[in-house]
Formats: sequence, C-alpha cells, structure tokens
Amino acid sequence: MQKRNYIFSVIKKNFELFGYQPLETPAMENITTLTGKYGEEGDQLIFKILNSRIHEHKDKTKLRTEFEKSLESAYNTEDLTERALRYDLTVPFARYVVMNQHNITFPFKRYQIQPVWRADKPQKGRYREFYQCDADIIGSDSLVNELDLISLIDISFSQLNIPVLLKFNNRKILTAIAEVVNEKDKIVDITVAIDKLDKIGTDGVVKELQGKGINQAAIEKLSPLFDFKGDNNDKVNTLKKFVGDNETGKKGIEEIEYLLKNAKASHVKIELDITLARGLNYYTGTIFEVKANARTFTPSILGGGRYDDLTGIFGLPNMSGVGISFGIDRIYDVMEELNLYPESVSKVSSTKLLFAHFDESNRDHCMQLASELRKNLISCEVYPDVTKKVAKQFDYANKKSIPFVCVVGSNEMEKKRYNLKNMVSGTQEELSLEDIINKLK
Amino acid sequence: MQKRNYIFSVIKKNFELFGYQPLETPAMENITTLTGKYGEEGDQLIFKILNSRIHEHKDKTKLRTEFEKSLESAYNTEDLTERALRYDLTVPFARYVVMNQHNITFPFKRYQIQPVWRADKPQKGRYREFYQCDADIIGSDSLVNELDLISLIDISFSQLNIPVLLKFNNRKILTAIAEVVNEKDKIVDITVAIDKLDKIGTDGVVKELQGKGINQAAIEKLSPLFDFKGDNNDKVNTLKKFVGDNETGKKGIEEIEYLLKNAKASHVKIELDITLARGLNYYTGTIFEVKANARTFTPSILGGGRYDDLTGIFGLPNMSGVGISFGIDRIYDVMEELNLYPESVSKVSSTKLLFAHFDESNRDHCMQLASELRKNLISCEVYPDVTKKVAKQFDYANKKSIPFVCVVGSNEMEKKRYNLKNMVSGTQEELSLEDIINKLK
Repeated sequence: MQKRNYIFSVIKKNFELFGYQPLETPAMENITTLTGKYGEEGDQLIFKILNSRIHEHKDKTKLRTEFEKSLESAYNTEDLTERALRYDLTVPFARYVVMNQHNITFPFKRYQIQPVWRADKPQKGRYREFYQCDADIIGSDSLVNELDLISLIDISFSQLNIPVLLKFNNRKILTAIAEVVNEKDKIVDITVAIDKLDKIGTDGVVKELQGKGINQAAIEKLSPLFDFKGDNNDKVNTLKKFVGDNETGKKGIEEIEYLLKNAKASHVKIELDITLARGLNYYTGTIFEVKANARTFTPSILGGGRYDDLTGIFGLPNMSGVGISFGIDRIYDVMEELNLYPESVSKVSSTKLLFAHFDESNRDHCMQLASELRKNLISCEVYPDVTKKVAKQFDYANKKSIPFVCVVGSNEMEKKRYNLKNMVSGTQEELSLEDIINKLK
Repeated sequence: MQKRNYIFSVIKKNFELFGYQPLETPAMENITTLTGKYGEEGDQLIFKILNSRIHEHKDKTKLRTEFEKSLESAYNTEDLTERALRYDLTVPFARYVVMNQHNITFPFKRYQIQPVWRADKPQKGRYREFYQCDADIIGSDSLVNELDLISLIDISFSQLNIPVLLKFNNRKILTAIAEVVNEKDKIVDITVAIDKLDKIGTDGVVKELQGKGINQAAIEKLSPLFDFKGDNNDKVNTLKKFVGDNETGKKGIEEIEYLLKNAKASHVKIELDITLARGLNYYTGTIFEVKANARTFTPSILGGGRYDDLTGIFGLPNMSGVGISFGIDRIYDVMEELNLYPESVSKVSSTKLLFAHFDESNRDHCMQLASELRKNLISCEVYPDVTKKVAKQFDYANKKSIPFVCVVGSNEMEKKRYNLKNMVSGTQEELSLEDIINKLK
C-alpha cells in the first residue's frame, strides 16, 4: 500500500501541475453503457451485478426466459443485470462528459485514479481488480496537448527513477500503409507481422503476411518497411517515400514531424515505431506507449493516444481528445525489481517513535508525551497493553520497523529526561521531551 | 472531489500521526464471507456479482434449480453468485486479519478508506456507493486504545472546524440494565424507548415500554433512568445506584470512569449517553458516536466501539478490538452547510496560471514558460488551441477559477517581460519570468 501510494502521489502531483482536475465515477455503470465497447472478448470480461430483489419481480416468466438466454451464450439483459462494474476509466469518462457537457468547460483536462474490474483468470501481471491512472484532455485537437502529455510522461518517470523508452506512432500512418498497398482490411495483420521483424526476420514476416492472404504485390510494396531503421529522421524519410501522395499518410507525417520537432523530453528517449498499434479501433492520431527497461522484462507501463470520436457513441460527436494511462501495477513490479523506492517509502511503518513502559502510571505518562509529539506532527504510538516485558514492546517496534523507542519508567518520569533508542544504529541518548521533539521533527 | 479529498487528507494525516497503517482490500469478497454478518435486511442489500461464463457451466440443471430458489426468496448461491461487493470495511478487515494472522504484528493498528456498496434505494444521506473511513486496533483490550481514538476524534474534528459532541456509552451498561430489571431479551426495546425521552416525555416512554410487553415491575425499576440528567459524574452516580451489585454493570462503570478520568479531549465535549446502542449485536464494551452541531440538522458523523470477538466468526476467537468509522458523506454535507472549507479547497481549479496567446509562435513560447513554472512546482496550463480570441481564453480561466492569466504576444516575447493579470483583483503587472515564479511560489 505505502509503495503504491508513493507511485500514485508522484503521478497525481504531476497531473495537477499540468492542470488536470480530479474526477471519480461510480464503480457501477448501466450495463448498456459498457457492453459493445470493448469487443466480443471484452464483453465477456465485464463483471455483471445481479439485480437485487429479483424474488420481488413481477414478471418471473420473463426473468426465466432471460436467464435461459444467459445459459446459452454470453448475453446481457437489464432484467437480470442492469448494472456492471466498470471495465476501464475511458468509457465512464466519455459517458460523464456527454451527461455533463453543458456544465463542463472545454477543453476539459481530467485525471482519474480508480480500480477497474475484469473477469479474467488471475495470473502474474493480470488481475481481476486493478487500478488505472488516466489523464485525458478532451475538446481540443491541438497537438500541443500531445506535447503536454510527453512532458508529463517525461517528468513522471524521471521522478520515479524508472529508465524508459517512449515509443510513438500515428494511426494515420497505419491507415496509409494499408491504403498504399491496397489491403485496407488487413491493417492489423500487417502491423502484427511487421512487429515481429526482430524475432522472425524478413523471411518470417513475409511468410506470415502470405499466410494472412496478403497478395504478393502488396508484400513487395511493403518491403521498404522491413528495413525500417535508423534514427527518427531516417524513419520519417522512409515513411515519406512510402506514403507518397496518400493524403492520410501526409497528414500523419506532418503530425509526427511536429511532435519530433517540439517535444521537450529531457529524460525520456523518444522513438518512432510504426508497428505500434494499441487499440486500433479506438485511436485516430498519435499513439503512445512507454516501455520500461527492467532487468528481466521490458513491459509496457503506459499507453495512450488520440481519439477523434470517443463520445460519439453516447451522442456527442466530433469531440477530439488525447489521453494516457499509467499501468500502475506494472510500474509497481518494475520498481520492485529495480529496487527504486526511496528509503522512506520502503519502510513498513510511518510511525516514528514507540513509547514503551512498565506499569500503568508509566503508560499514562507516555500518553501525555505522545500527545505533545503529535502536536508537533511527529507520528508516534504508545504500546497499549501494560506488561513488564519490555522485550515484547521492542519486538513490536522492530516488526513494525519503527525507528525510535523511548522507554519510560519511574526514574524517567521523575527526572523528565527520557532514554531515546535509535533502533537502526542501536545508540541511546538521554533527552528532555523538547530535545526529542527537536530531534525527530 | 477536491472537497472530499480535503476531508480524507485531514483524517488520513491523523491516522498516520497515531500510528495506524493503511490497508486496502478488494471490492469483491466471496459471498459466504459477507452473508449472515449484517442481519436479514443487510443480506438483501448486498450487491451480488453474477458468475461470468455461466453459459459454459457444465451443470445447467443445477443452475436452473438455484435460479428458481433466487426467484422465490432472497437467496445466495455460489453457483450463480460466488462473489459480492463489500458492504462495509469491518468484515473484510476481520477476514484479512484471520487470513494473515501469522504475518501481522499485534496489536494491529490499521486504517482503511474505500468505497462500500449497498443495494438501497438512493436518497439524501443514503447512497448506493459511498466511502467508509475506518481506523481499528485489534489484538489489545486496553482502554488506552479508546483514549487514543478519543484524542484522534478530538484533533480531527477540530482541524475540520466542525463543532461536535462526542457521546459514549458502554454495552455492558445496557446488558446490566436489562439484567437488573429482569428483561434480558428486551435491551433494544428499552434502549429505543429511553432514547425518546426528550421527544415524548416520561409518560410516552412508559407507554412505549408497556406496548413492548415489558412488565410493570420492570418499568418501575427503570424509572431512575427516566431522570438521567446532570453532568457525567451525576450520571455515573445514578448508574452506580441502579446497577448495584450487578457484575457486568460494575465492570461497565469502571470502564466509563476510566475514560472520563483519562480522556484528553480539549476541543470536543464528551457526554455519557446510556441510550446510545449502535450495532448492539456487535459491540461488547465502549460505544462511540459523534454528532455535529449543524444549523438545520445534527447528524451522526462518526460511530464506533469495542468488539471482543470480531474475528471469531472466521475462526480466530478472543481478538479484542476497538474502532471508529468517519461518516465522510455526512461530514461533507455538514461542511457544505456550515461553509467550513478553507478557501484554497473551495476553488474549482488547482491550476494557478493560464498562458493565453495569439498565434502558434506565441503558444510555443508559452509552452517553454510553462515548463519553467512547472519545474518550480507551479501548476499551470497553456491554452491548447490557437485562436485570436483572447476573450475566449480568459473565459476558460474564469470558468475554471484559475487565479492568474498571462497573455503572451510578440511584444512580450521580444522584451521577455510578461503581463500577469490577477483574475480576482483585476490588477495587472509587467514582470519577468523570474518575477512571476517568485510571485506565485
């Protein structure tokens, strides 16, 4: 918890630094809001809430009919399951924007950090409940918003100390490639195949493209992309030749060039990657992905992009937006592996000092001392049970990683000087209450 | 959101000041963990999750049978609904403690701030999804823990500026009263009736007790409690006479006297109230309730108490604990009514400054300035769209309550001196970037 809160706090601070406003939406959405938005497989992963009090429903025959349909195939019925748990933060955000369009000042910059639920088989890196952490700006098609997000990504991963690579692409380029080779319907197949170049080589890719039914002429036209190397400028030049007069392609290159020219990322390396195709059905312009350079794995820890028509499905067309989503659980895993947490975060306890004692009167005195420390915003505890066993109290401090223990006996109460033990170094000092406060503040 | 976050931040800071550690549990629990813990009415308010992929289930006849039972009465079946949404934070906490008992250092102080869900009809002060905000210490029966919580309550409401009254009682007193008058099974009826003294007078209370089938001798014995007035000491004396030699009663009075003697609450008024009976089945010792003194209503905004056997239902007996739960949504309502938010919180925006501009080159320059401000942790935005209409950009700042606007044109870019407009006072100043940073920091 403390580690995850640390990640949240870094990202949240930056969201606010860039002017994004916090938003929370309810865990439950109407099932009709969610279904049909995540593809067929996605629909099956939506957790549905059984309507309460179905035993009081008037039309049980209808319920039985609906239930029979649910037994035959993945089926949604408001009669049985009117509500469902949110599957991501984007669709509830779109629903919110449409419902509140008359009260929102556009462009609307919002961030949202909340759990989402998916009825997946739990496994490493895949959870039934996990946090998403999104920032979007909606109601502006300016590429300045992309620049803003690049800067936000740059600052955030730099502060988290994670070495990363920011890959980006543009959906228009993918469209143009498919148009140029005359295989509009095969964008996904083409992208997936080219993505494997590193692993299976040119021959492998050609074979895969053939397997997908892409004709020989198209494959030959694609061949310049098999050798898509060099720095970003080289890549842009290759692309320019490739797309030629294709209007969509030219627009995509223009956007890519703008970002390459203006992006001010001082920590993150930015790389154009034409195989990047996250959520193809969804994005219409820039596509982002951040990969971490961890020791044993290089997971994607952020994704995002521009969508020209997110709210159209809810009846508000032509709202262009762009957003990113931090993959908190994977960021957590990377930071664990690379041991990147600041020391203060790795500690189990936020408690700075434990008061130990021998009897009830000592303990009462400790309660007064604790009250003074807390007035000075020093987090502390009094061991609550009366016990002669000081070792047990030290053990408690040790297990909770509390860095200081102050043992209060009758002598200490009389002299008003207290023994402060540093649990890390083992050193002890006799101090007044005032000294203790000054030392720990 | 910003207002609620403010309340959370105050309470959370104090939880940590007192050594409570953060815990989060999943939204979904096994349905068997939840059912039977909240009474019959509570069970019906639990949101159940329909099992996914029931269309792939092997035994559809069984599912049909289970479904038929659900149509007849409120019924839980793991075949259809294995999981449910948590109903409160206490039961998941108990489940967590039992599951992790070998890794937890006791006494275990934890806090938890998460939403819970209830299938209630939504109405004012009652929501389907709402936050609970709990602190518990488990594994210690020392009354020092109660003192700690009183101090935590005292500090928290003082910092939130809410005028409150802390009422407390002890479950043992309620047990003793029922024992003394020989009506053990009627504790609830007796308590509810006495609670109405202010409203319906002694005669009304007597009538109500008679209506509940409590015999005349018992009612006469109860009569000293009808005149339960005076300060806390007077009340303790009345109680002492009333319970006489009843062992449970004597123990209860001892605990009450300890708290009255040792509680250090400098802001909150503490009042013994023997009609206080929150969650009778649950608490075994001290019972807490905090009432706010708002103008039009005095809602209960915190509840809590000691339970001697919270984890027994999950197989870990004799774990005494005590906890409190802040009623965040009602605290929010009270703070709204009394207008208690600090000015900084009531603002819509956390953005301090908006950069406005006339053309693309101005805007690019703004992006650089914004980057410098953010390096100095000053939250700012650049209006993303290029528009000659400066009024539109000012309008955006106004609607978002951004307090400063800096308009950057070609002149400003040349001179590197910028016009900073205070949106509240209307005053303008011509400043260098450095001056702006120093002014806003």
